[in-house]
Amino acid sequence: MTEKVNLAQKLGLFDEHWQPKIVARINDNDVRIVKVKGEFVWHKHDDTDDFFLVLQGHLTIQLRDRNVELDAGELFVVPHGVEHCPRADEEASLLLIEPAGTINTGDAGGPLTTEPQSI
Amino acid sequence: MTEKVNLAQKLGLFDEHWQPKIVARINDNDVRIVKVKGEFVWHKHDDTDDFFLVLQGHLTIQLRDRNVELDAGELFVVPHGVEHCPRADEEASLLLIEPAGTINTGDAGGPLTTEPQSI
Repeated sequence: MTEKVNLAQKLGLFDEHWQPKIVARINDNDVRIVKVKGEFVWHKHDDTDDFFLVLQGHLTIQLRDRNVELDAGELFVVPHGVEHCPRADEEASLLLIEPAGTINTGDAGGPLTTEPQSI
Repeated sequence: MTEKVNLAQKLGLFDEHWQPKIVARINDNDVRIVKVKGEFVWHKHDDTDDFFLVLQGHLTIQLRDRNVELDAGELFVVPHGVEHCPRADEEASLLLIEPAGTINTGDAGGPLTTEPQSI
């Protein structure tokens, strides 16, 4: 049986940016949290939508034709196959939901690619 | 293409309790919000885990062997097949993630069963 998850407590356990941590599992999906600052990398996920909920701070999700601006308490789903590049000028904290095994950098790869750890 | 969702704005659109509204879709899953007050009904979902994130207020998830107490910013996943009965003495607002088509009352049925609408 799982235990409850306090998001603020979990966010207090790490400082690094762009390295998602798994805090729960729903069926075949991970619930991940991540701290972000600066610009990520343009990428897409051909096989899965990409869910972002801002917990703290402000996130810009750059799409090829517009920017989506998210404050705390706002969410956005990037449809599968759509190129996007998250950016945060100041540190922000996010909750992500993605099928287990989803690679954070999607089709782009590169140095920001990381295997999420459970915390 | 979907638009961003402001959870507080969406919660302002309705007052009724125990009637989830769909605010987004992630692959085959609904993102639902719901206002709750009082006691729901004991039920289980044999085929899916049940994800609760408290947005406002306090929620008690009664399990057969213990209670899980959740404040805003806390989440819990009830594993598939596990009987549970949510309860909120004061109104609370929740975010739920469930496979599209999931029946809110699971195996229990009864008068609280409702088809979630998109808002």
